[in-house]
Order: sequence, then C-alpha cells, then structure tokens
Amino acid sequence: MCELLGMSANVPTDICFSFAGLMRRGGQTGPHRDGWGICFYEGKGHRAFHDPCASAQSEIAHFIRHYSIKSKTVICHIRLANSGRVALENTHPFSRELWGRLWTFAHNGQLKGIKQRPLTHYHPIGSTDSEHAFCWMLDRLRQRWDHAPRAAALDREIGLLCAEINSIGVFNLLLSDGRRLFCHCSNRLSWLTRRAPFGAATLLDEDLTVDFSRETGPDDVVTVIATRPLTRDEAWRTMAPGQLMIFRDGVASR
Amino acid sequence: MCELLGMSANVPTDICFSFAGLMRRGGQTGPHRDGWGICFYEGKGHRAFHDPCASAQSEIAHFIRHYSIKSKTVICHIRLANSGRVALENTHPFSRELWGRLWTFAHNGQLKGIKQRPLTHYHPIGSTDSEHAFCWMLDRLRQRWDHAPRAAALDREIGLLCAEINSIGVFNLLLSDGRRLFCHCSNRLSWLTRRAPFGAATLLDEDLTVDFSRETGPDDVVTVIATRPLTRDEAWRTMAPGQLMIFRDGVASR
Repeated sequence: MCELLGMSANVPTDICFSFAGLMRRGGQTGPHRDGWGICFYEGKGHRAFHDPCASAQSEIAHFIRHYSIKSKTVICHIRLANSGRVALENTHPFSRELWGRLWTFAHNGQLKGIKQRPLTHYHPIGSTDSEHAFCWMLDRLRQRWDHAPRAAALDREIGLLCAEINSIGVFNLLLSDGRRLFCHCSNRLSWLTRRAPFGAATLLDEDLTVDFSRETGPDDVVTVIATRPLTRDEAWRTMAPGQLMIFRDGVASR
Repeated sequence: MCELLGMSANVPTDICFSFAGLMRRGGQTGPHRDGWGICFYEGKGHRAFHDPCASAQSEIAHFIRHYSIKSKTVICHIRLANSGRVALENTHPFSRELWGRLWTFAHNGQLKGIKQRPLTHYHPIGSTDSEHAFCWMLDRLRQRWDHAPRAAALDREIGLLCAEINSIGVFNLLLSDGRRLFCHCSNRLSWLTRRAPFGAATLLDEDLTVDFSRETGPDDVVTVIATRPLTRDEAWRTMAPGQLMIFRDGVASR
C-alpha cells in the first residue's frame, strides 16, 4: 500500500509541515520506501517532483521541505510498490492533459484486472495498475466530452468512474485539474480543514509543532487530505467507503 | 528569443557544467529572464523542473546545478518571452505522452499564425506559440500512426513536420521521446561531441573549467547541442538552416 496527501486552499499555501510528516513515513516511520512524488499547481501550470528512492533519504525531498513552494492545490504520494517495479516512470502522481488542463492522479490500493480494459487516447508510460486506471478514466471522460463539461456533470461522471474502478479493488484516489481536488475513499482517507481561529498542531511522525496562527491570514481556508492523520492534536475526519469529496479553494463542494 | 540546450549520451551523464553556463545567460550574462526549465530522462520516466523566474536567481536552478542528476537525454530551455505571458505553464520544455512514451519539446523562435492550425488530440495548457506547435506535431504523428512506427518512417515524418512549421517562422527545436533527440535548426543551433581522448573545457559565461578526462570513462560519448556555443576552447559545429539531426546514445543517426 501507499500513502496519499492532498491539499486544497483558498490562497497559495505551503505544505512543508504536512510534507515533513509524510516524508518520514517514506522509509523511516513507515515502510513506503519505493519512491515518492509531489505536484504543486501554480495557475494552469504545475511543478512536479518525483524520486524513485525513499523520501526519508531523498535529497530532492529535503530541498522541497525547506524551499517553501506555495500552491492552492497539491497532490503527494509515497510508494510501497506492489504493481510495477521501482522506477521513476512508476512513481505517482501521474499527469496528463485533458481539455487543455493538466490532470494529476495519485492512487493507493490494488486494482486486479484493470489492465484488461482497453485504452484509446491515453496510454501508460510505466507499468502500474494505477497509471492504467488513470488513463482509463481520462479516456472515458474524453470519449464523452470533447470540451470540458459543466462541473455538475463532470462530478457525477467522475463519481461513476470511481465507483466502477472501486468495484474491482481498492481505489483511494486523489485527482485534480488544478482547480478542484477529487478525493475518493475506498477504505482509508481522512481530512481536516484549518481556518480561523488557527491553533497549533504537532506531527505524529516527527517532533515538530507549527502554530498556524502565525503562518496564516484570518481568511485562509486550508484542507488537508491524507491516508492516515498526520497530526496528533487536530480533529481529523474519516471518509466513508465509497465516498467522493470534491474540494475547491479548501471548501468541500460535495 | 530563447536559448536551448540538449544532451544525448551513451551512459547516464550529468549536465551540471553546461547547465551552469546556460543558467548564467538567464538574467545575468544573457537577457533570458522569463523562466527556464529542464527535463532529464531516466528510463521511460523523466524529472522535469520549471521555474518562471530568471535562472540566474532561481533557487531550484541552484539546487540542480549542485545535485548531480545523471541522464542519457536532457532538454533545457531559458526563456525570453515573446508569445505568452511569464507563467509556469508557458515555461518550456513541454511534455505529452504519445504511444506510451513521454515526449518533450523545447523551442526557440516565433511562429506566426501557428495558432490557427486546428488541434484534435493534444491541446495547449499555456498560451505560447511553441506549445501549440508541439501539440500540432504530436496530433499529426498520432493521426498517422496508432502505434509507434519504425524509426526511419518516424524520422522522415518529423523532418517533414519541422520543414512545414519552419516555413511560417523560426523553428529551432529540441524534441525527444527519451531515447532519441531530434534537433532542428532554423537559424541557430550548434553542437559538439565529446569522446576519448577527453580534454578540458572552459565556459564562456563563467570562469569554470572542467577536465572531462577525470569525469568520464574511456567509452563515453556525450553530445551537447546549444543555441550558442557554451565553451570557449572546443570545436563547436554549426548546424545548417533547415537541417535536422537525430542523436541516440550521443551519436548522430542522421
């Protein structure tokens, strides 16, 4: 299994604190030593960093942890390989362009038989089940719409696709087009929203506390989604199996 | 105008030395202050770094310069914006998947009217002429072949597409699928191949000398392609207008 971390915020926010906690699980406080990746959206573009080595030892992870990249939408993943060898091309998050937007996908779980599903527009570069599932989802969206549809129709379709993939395995998912963050829970996904009045939080995986009242403005809304809670002193909420949540600017629209 | 830098080698090689020279031209010894990007292939995957600020001042560029990433195929670009505002999504190199391979594209020049050409499969995320040209090229390749064709047919088709785009403007190009590096010269592109016996080289833009005989093995073959020569004491060769060169493992196949 792998672990996921996502963020949706209404102002560009750095994820250094949560990232620090998750990176420790990549080979130190957790077994996910088979690579890691992170994608930060910035406008319509994104910065993506991938490394096929353990995040706890990664020099690139060390750099990112100390170089504050601010973003409204972030997807991060640490990997414990089960499908596909340890290699850069098998490291999540995966990205593809659809309707002139860059879509990014990270997955936790196994999807037996997904590779039997034929693909048309999008093809995997690596050999994971996950990337095949991503290509299949985008294929279906593209076959249905030549241009981006209205949000409500897109949300409904993504919900149906998640349910279909979920029926053949475990499909904990973070997916984004840069504006919205789609979070599907198959069996394990938690989240919390930080907003005023901000307090302090302490990581579970490292002796590190941040006082968010010093780091944030009074109108900031920041939602963090993770496979397992990252802090010990905040009220994380657990998503239900089969639930799809969609965040934009830190707020759940569904 | 922008500047390009590419590398093709028969063993994973670091590009730190050439990168150091080019990065100085991004706002220090040259005017290209509107962003920069670099893509390092590693197997079928790649590491890409982009920054919309001047490379001479970029913290990410500083990190890469000192963190030796080894690759057989590299494409790098520094930008002086003419089409498309200064933004992350307008920063080369651009990437898309075609036939299950990741293609990467960086361009120097202007292409008047390219945006009038309709697109089918691939759509730009940013607003540059360059990305539109890239999408158009991949569209044409995809319309012609569902799966990767033989190299000779692909080379011929890429040559025709380059000539067609070149006819409407300036099209100095670096393009790769990770294995091969396609270099099209419209009006300015130079290259050199380093192989045994290796000597020393000194950058034009910085007082930095490397003795390659200490850095390389006797069988290494490393070709560097750049808009303008990067070193003062090596025999750079100039490509002819309209010429397409294709390198694999450091060696020109055409």
